[in-house]
Amino acid sequence: MDEKAHLNALQEQVETALRACFQGREPRGDIYDAMEYSLLAGGKRVRPVLTLEVCRMCGGDPALAMPFACAVEMIHTYSLIHDDLPCMDDDDLRRGKPTNHKIYGEATAVLAGDGLLTAAFEIALREDSPLPPQRVVAAAACLARAAGAHGMVGGQVLDMAAEGRAVSRYDVEQLQRLKTGALLSAAAEMGCIVAGGTREEQEAVRLYAEKLGMAFQIRDDMLDLEGNEATLGKPIGSDQANEKTTFVSLLGMDGCRALVKKLTDEAVCALSRFGAERSSFLCWLAEALAGREQ
Amino acid sequence: MDEKAHLNALQEQVETALRACFQGREPRGDIYDAMEYSLLAGGKRVRPVLTLEVCRMCGGDPALAMPFACAVEMIHTYSLIHDDLPCMDDDDLRRGKPTNHKIYGEATAVLAGDGLLTAAFEIALREDSPLPPQRVVAAAACLARAAGAHGMVGGQVLDMAAEGRAVSRYDVEQLQRLKTGALLSAAAEMGCIVAGGTREEQEAVRLYAEKLGMAFQIRDDMLDLEGNEATLGKPIGSDQANEKTTFVSLLGMDGCRALVKKLTDEAVCALSRFGAERSSFLCWLAEALAGREQ
Repeated sequence: MDEKAHLNALQEQVETALRACFQGREPRGDIYDAMEYSLLAGGKRVRPVLTLEVCRMCGGDPALAMPFACAVEMIHTYSLIHDDLPCMDDDDLRRGKPTNHKIYGEATAVLAGDGLLTAAFEIALREDSPLPPQRVVAAAACLARAAGAHGMVGGQVLDMAAEGRAVSRYDVEQLQRLKTGALLSAAAEMGCIVAGGTREEQEAVRLYAEKLGMAFQIRDDMLDLEGNEATLGKPIGSDQANEKTTFVSLLGMDGCRALVKKLTDEAVCALSRFGAERSSFLCWLAEALAGREQ
Repeated sequence: MDEKAHLNALQEQVETALRACFQGREPRGDIYDAMEYSLLAGGKRVRPVLTLEVCRMCGGDPALAMPFACAVEMIHTYSLIHDDLPCMDDDDLRRGKPTNHKIYGEATAVLAGDGLLTAAFEIALREDSPLPPQRVVAAAACLARAAGAHGMVGGQVLDMAAEGRAVSRYDVEQLQRLKTGALLSAAAEMGCIVAGGTREEQEAVRLYAEKLGMAFQIRDDMLDLEGNEATLGKPIGSDQANEKTTFVSLLGMDGCRALVKKLTDEAVCALSRFGAERSSFLCWLAEALAGREQ
């Protein structure tokens, strides 16, 4: 298998599906434009790729997982729009482009986020789905749990509370688990649920995504210090400027590198029950994200 | 039937259920406090009452509709929190109390809204529900459609666009249909879906809620001019001060009074298929809301 080509193919399928989500929707006005501006702004599409590929690995039809893949990307996108708001992180750039509120104004940016969050459940709950309805309920419930106040929203609360003060490694890990880990895990678990995987399989892909998510965040912190601004599409050094406690400030660069390797090995290990062939792409993906430059 | 007593009983059941929603939830911090501050700030609970009572009228068990009743009230509450933000309507008071961002700050208010919107789907999609899963999917999908960018969120977009400029009666009606009508209709429809009502029954309760919702909004506009500030818990005359086009500015007080009566009659008429006895409370409710002072 040419993993890079497979990743590109999955990413293209996701782009096509996301572009189709709001086609022909009324009232057009600014709201759907604002929603699509951020939804179609590129990015690695890690979450939807996880949903589709976990579904395939667990013996399901990835096409049936696509609504959930789009849903999780919508949740991720809305969280970026709201996080960038002046009353939150007050960021002007995201993926090298002006942030949503810089283009559409604050009010529309708040509403575009609300619209995407709601649309995620609308697309996940399509009544014409050929899936057994209990799987639809289970997958959408998994997404809601991960996105809410004891998941991603709770993580953003901790992130704001941590600003400008020293926090422990436990705090940083807990913050990451909620803010980015929960949604990555849900992305993977939904793929397994759509495929009709067992509890044990769901637990295994959750563990994989948890380890991958933690490694991903540590790599993010490393790139904020040693990355290339042009490649990243955002200024580097912002964590240090904001006196933010990160994995780098806690463990140093060498410590981070070692931990990323350990977590990536653990992620790969979590998939052993699926066999080397079926899990090969997801194992490659974990390694690829661990060594990424953007 | 003592309708006033029945309404009070339903409202109390809703309060109890809402109070239980986030009990014992972690991480506590500000987020659940902020969510509960607005969720438990009182109000008429019109939407959840509709869900419970329509369920009963359609022959279902209202207890099974309670998760959806709580969900629709959470969506309504999140929309109030976000609408009150400085970048939106910039309101300091809501139901006689400081608005969410006045107490918790803007960032937490945005997140409390996001948390409530997400929690609505979490509670609607409880996997231990004894309902057939296809009804859970249908009811939650109905809620998502009504709350999103071509429903409530779209209505708020139109509302902002209408500010400070003259708009037609068609525009005002369209705005109301999306901003408050869509969610009221979903509240009623979900009750019917939970009860396993027919398509025709669902259509009838949707029509009832649409008429009731329009009458409700016109009454709202009237109260903004002739209401009592202490009873309303908010300052009156704000529409006029903001040069807002309302039903009162379009039709005058007498025209509004006549239209509220007409719409209320039509709402009552829409329930005729259910018979006078089963629909008596909802007919009374339409009349009571049409004549309300707050």
